[in-house]
Amino acid sequence: MTNTPAHDPSLFTGLSAFPLTPLKGESLDEDAFVGLIERLVLAGVDSITALGSTGSYAYLNTDERARVAQLSVESALDIPVFIGVGALRTRDVLINVASAETAGAQGLLLAPVSYQPLTDDEVFELFRAVTESTDLPVVVYDNPGTTHFTFSTELYSRLAALPGVASIKIPGTPASPAGWDERIGEIRAAIGSEVTIGISGDAYGAEGLVAGCDAWYTAVGGTIPEPLLEITRAAELGNADLARELSAELQPLWDLFTEFGGSLRVSAAIAEHLGLVAVGSLPLPVSDLDAAAKRKVAEVAESLDLA
Amino acid sequence: MTNTPAHDPSLFTGLSAFPLTPLKGESLDEDAFVGLIERLVLAGVDSITALGSTGSYAYLNTDERARVAQLSVESALDIPVFIGVGALRTRDVLINVASAETAGAQGLLLAPVSYQPLTDDEVFELFRAVTESTDLPVVVYDNPGTTHFTFSTELYSRLAALPGVASIKIPGTPASPAGWDERIGEIRAAIGSEVTIGISGDAYGAEGLVAGCDAWYTAVGGTIPEPLLEITRAAELGNADLARELSAELQPLWDLFTEFGGSLRVSAAIAEHLGLVAVGSLPLPVSDLDAAAKRKVAEVAESLDLA
Repeated sequence: MTNTPAHDPSLFTGLSAFPLTPLKGESLDEDAFVGLIERLVLAGVDSITALGSTGSYAYLNTDERARVAQLSVESALDIPVFIGVGALRTRDVLINVASAETAGAQGLLLAPVSYQPLTDDEVFELFRAVTESTDLPVVVYDNPGTTHFTFSTELYSRLAALPGVASIKIPGTPASPAGWDERIGEIRAAIGSEVTIGISGDAYGAEGLVAGCDAWYTAVGGTIPEPLLEITRAAELGNADLARELSAELQPLWDLFTEFGGSLRVSAAIAEHLGLVAVGSLPLPVSDLDAAAKRKVAEVAESLDLA
Repeated sequence: MTNTPAHDPSLFTGLSAFPLTPLKGESLDEDAFVGLIERLVLAGVDSITALGSTGSYAYLNTDERARVAQLSVESALDIPVFIGVGALRTRDVLINVASAETAGAQGLLLAPVSYQPLTDDEVFELFRAVTESTDLPVVVYDNPGTTHFTFSTELYSRLAALPGVASIKIPGTPASPAGWDERIGEIRAAIGSEVTIGISGDAYGAEGLVAGCDAWYTAVGGTIPEPLLEITRAAELGNADLARELSAELQPLWDLFTEFGGSLRVSAAIAEHLGLVAVGSLPLPVSDLDAAAKRKVAEVAESLDLA
C-alpha cells in the first residue's frame, strides 16, 4: 500500500516548537500562553506544536484543550500550528481532533498514551480511527518515557502506510554519529520518503538533524527558540560541525534535564526566570522544581544568555 | 507521628472485589454494571472496590465516575463500597473524591497515575491533598505496571503516617513463601499495625494472605468471586495448605493472565462468556481479546467451572 499524501510533507520539517501550557492555580493562564506563542512567532520557528508533552496535554480536559487549540491558532499568525490530541481513551482523542480542526490547526500530534499496556494492533487501530476521522495530517508521537508504549520499526512502517500519517516524532537516545546514521536509515527504509522523521529529546537534536531527520520537535525550544533555531539552520545548511558545536555550547542546559527529571520542569523554571509564566504553572501533582533547583536553572540560563 | 485512625481498620480486610465497568459503544452499560455488583453482593464479598484498574477508572471522565460511584453504592446494599479516585491531575482526583463522598462510599482507592514521571514528594503531596480534603479512609494503590510509579518502603511509611491512610494495596510478585514473609514483615514494620496490607495480582493472593496480608484486592474476583472467596476464607481460617491448593487449581486462569497481557482483557472475556457484559465492553483503544483468545478463555472457564 502506497501512501499518497494529500498533505505537503514540507509542513513537517525544520523546527517545531512545543510551548508550555502555563496554569495559574487550576486555570489556564491565557495571557502567559499567548505570550509564549507570540515569542515563537517573533523568533520565526517553522511550526508550533501546542499541547505536546511540554504543553501538559495529558493533564487537560477536552474543554481546556479546545481553548488552547483556539488560542494557539489565533496567536500564531501565519505559522502553522499542530495540536496534540492524545488521550487515554479513543473517544476523547476524537473529541480533541474535532476541536483542533475547528480551531484551524494544520496538523495533529498523536501519542498512544497508555494506562493498560497496549498492543501494536490496538495502537494501529487508534491511528486508523484518527486518520479516518479527519483530513488533517498526523504526526506519530513516539515517547516511551511518558506513554510507556514502545514502537517497533515494523509498526512505524504500518502506520506510515496510513494515508494521513505525515511524520514520525522519534525519541532521542545516546548514540554515536554512525549509530544515528544507521538508525535513521533503518527508519527511512521502513516508512518511505513521503513521511518525515522528526527528532525529539533536545540534547539529541543536532545529531538527529545531521543524521538526516527532517524536523526537530523541540520541548525547550518552545520557551527559548533562538539557540535551537541556530542549530537547526546550521544543520539545514549542511554545516554539521557548527550544529554540533552550538549544541555542545548548550551542554549545561542538557545536563539540567538529566539532573531534574526531564525537560518539562526545567522549561517551566526557565520560563519563570524569564518572567514568562507565574510560579506554580505546572498541573499538580507535577510540581515546580524546588528553590535550590530553580536557582541552579537560573544560573545556567544567565550563563548561556538564554532570553 | 502516630496515625490515630478515625476509621475502622477492619473495613480493609478480607476480599475486596474489583468489578469491571462495562461499556456499550462509548456509554456506560449501566444494567450490566449493576448486574456485576449484584453478583458480588450475593457472593458475600467483604467489600467492593469500583473504579479500580479492572473498572477502567483511568479512561472515564469525572461525570462518568460520579455515575459509577452512585450506581455502586445504590446496588451494594450493606456491602462497603470503595471508589477509585485516581487521575493524572490532582484537580480531577479531588472532583472524584467529592463525587465518591456524595455517593456514600466508605473508602477511596488512590493510585499515583503518571504521564510525566513523578517524584516521591509529588506523590506524597497528592495523598496529603486528598486526605486533607475528605474524612474517608484512603487505600494507597501501588500498581507500577499501570501507573509507572514505583513506591519505596520508605514512602509507604510516610504515607501510612498520614491520618486518613487506612490500607496499602501492594503488587503481587513471584517470591518464595519465605520471601513473602520477609517482604510483608518489612512493610508491616514500616507502616505500623493500624494500616492494613492488601495483596493484588490475583495469582499471588493465596501466598500474600498466608504471609499475613489483611486483604485481597482482587481483579478477577470482581467477575467470579466464589473461588477467590474460598481461598480467602481458607487463609483466614489459618489453613495455608488449603488456600494454596485452591489457588493452584486456578493455575490455568493465572496462565491466561500471563498469556494475554494481564487480567483486564481476560476478565472481560470471562464476563462476556458468562453473559454478563456485551461484546466490546472495554474502553478503546483497549480492545477485546481476539476470537481465538476468547475461545481459549471460554475453555478454561468451562474446565474450571467458573460461573
